[in-house]
Amino acid sequence: MNHIQGSLIYEGKAKRVFACENPDRVLIEFKNDATAFNAKKRSLIEGKGRLNCKISAALFQLLELNGIPTHFLELHSETLMVADKISVIPLEVVIRNIATGSLCRETPINQGTILNPPLLDLYYKDDELGDPILTEGRLQLLDIISDIQREEIEQITRSVNKILKEYFDSLDLLLVDFKLEFGTNSSGKLVVADEISPDNCRFWDKKISDSKDRILDKDRFRQDLGGVIDAYQEILKRIENDSFHPG
Amino acid sequence: MNHIQGSLIYEGKAKRVFACENPDRVLIEFKNDATAFNAKKRSLIEGKGRLNCKISAALFQLLELNGIPTHFLELHSETLMVADKISVIPLEVVIRNIATGSLCRETPINQGTILNPPLLDLYYKDDELGDPILTEGRLQLLDIISDIQREEIEQITRSVNKILKEYFDSLDLLLVDFKLEFGTNSSGKLVVADEISPDNCRFWDKKISDSKDRILDKDRFRQDLGGVIDAYQEILKRIENDSFHPG
Repeated sequence: MNHIQGSLIYEGKAKRVFACENPDRVLIEFKNDATAFNAKKRSLIEGKGRLNCKISAALFQLLELNGIPTHFLELHSETLMVADKISVIPLEVVIRNIATGSLCRETPINQGTILNPPLLDLYYKDDELGDPILTEGRLQLLDIISDIQREEIEQITRSVNKILKEYFDSLDLLLVDFKLEFGTNSSGKLVVADEISPDNCRFWDKKISDSKDRILDKDRFRQDLGGVIDAYQEILKRIENDSFHPG
Repeated sequence: MNHIQGSLIYEGKAKRVFACENPDRVLIEFKNDATAFNAKKRSLIEGKGRLNCKISAALFQLLELNGIPTHFLELHSETLMVADKISVIPLEVVIRNIATGSLCRETPINQGTILNPPLLDLYYKDDELGDPILTEGRLQLLDIISDIQREEIEQITRSVNKILKEYFDSLDLLLVDFKLEFGTNSSGKLVVADEISPDNCRFWDKKISDSKDRILDKDRFRQDLGGVIDAYQEILKRIENDSFHPG
């Protein structure tokens, strides 16, 4: 397929989106930019774009194999992904299996608490407002999605969590939490969009008990632990060594 | 009745709670201390305690007359209220009829938007955590109240809003929003507790269109508008001039 890299449609903190010849598709470029705390902390991490692109591609394929609709179509290069052009739903859907991060800063729930059932929270995607968490009333008031779409989004997120949690468990990784974003493609179908990578998932090495050493995700950047790229590389290595790997 | 002012049970930002001879009752003293923005802003406002005590007493009586259970028993003096001793439920229940304040800072909802149905949000009462807003999942996780209690709290809050909104409308005041707190008394009954005053309600004068001049509540303190005590006095005057007034 010939995906001439067309005009820039959108540039976000970690990705650029380009037009394709086919108007229903886009090319997504994964950048090396790292940001945290609503972009108050910024850095460039050589190789991050390539790793996140390859990890996301593998995970989107795993989800598709399990019947979850995603925007992923194919890899174009190591940092470019062909995907459905979507209408973005301005929500960040966060699901947590173990309490850490902002949940423990904002509530009295202790670090490391197992969340069963997993905790699902919706945030309004808006950098200027700092991506505020949404109560049910606020979500209805903002009128972003219908009740039916909300149910569908929550159900897909719980299914994705189940699939990924089991998958990463088999790779000796704990899937602590992750964020999904959704959109509707040109057929109006709801699909998982954005990326699924150590930038928006937390992974802990099951075989390491030290609370810092076990971290294999963007918390290494947030907490200045070093070894960011090694951690991301380790996630990709475990995925690539797995028999599922479609590559 | 003889309510010997016993030992101090609890001191909050705006009230002190003392033991009574009857162990099921307490004396609540309304202080002149004013705080805002999680006590980052503080002041003493002479006369505020007296006004809030008298306004709260009148509004609790209005609610009782309308079948809403409250902790209020009687006024002991101008700044002291006899109330049920309650087990406090650590929630702040906020209901809004018109969008203003934190809602407009946290979401894209415009100042002055009429909220129909009124927006009801639950916050976890914890100064150190800054009283964080609770999603349904977080509320369940914290296990503060049962689903049945939650339904009862929400239903009572909506009823209180209906009663107070109509009442203040008859006094030419818009009830913009307010916060309720709940507790269970010695019989285990759920009651509206704390206070209902310009400290935890927003009132706008219906006949004034200027967005600052019309404010008759703690926003005069929060926004340094001056005339705090005059505004509180005006609320009490309208209540006392009303035929309902039980005093």
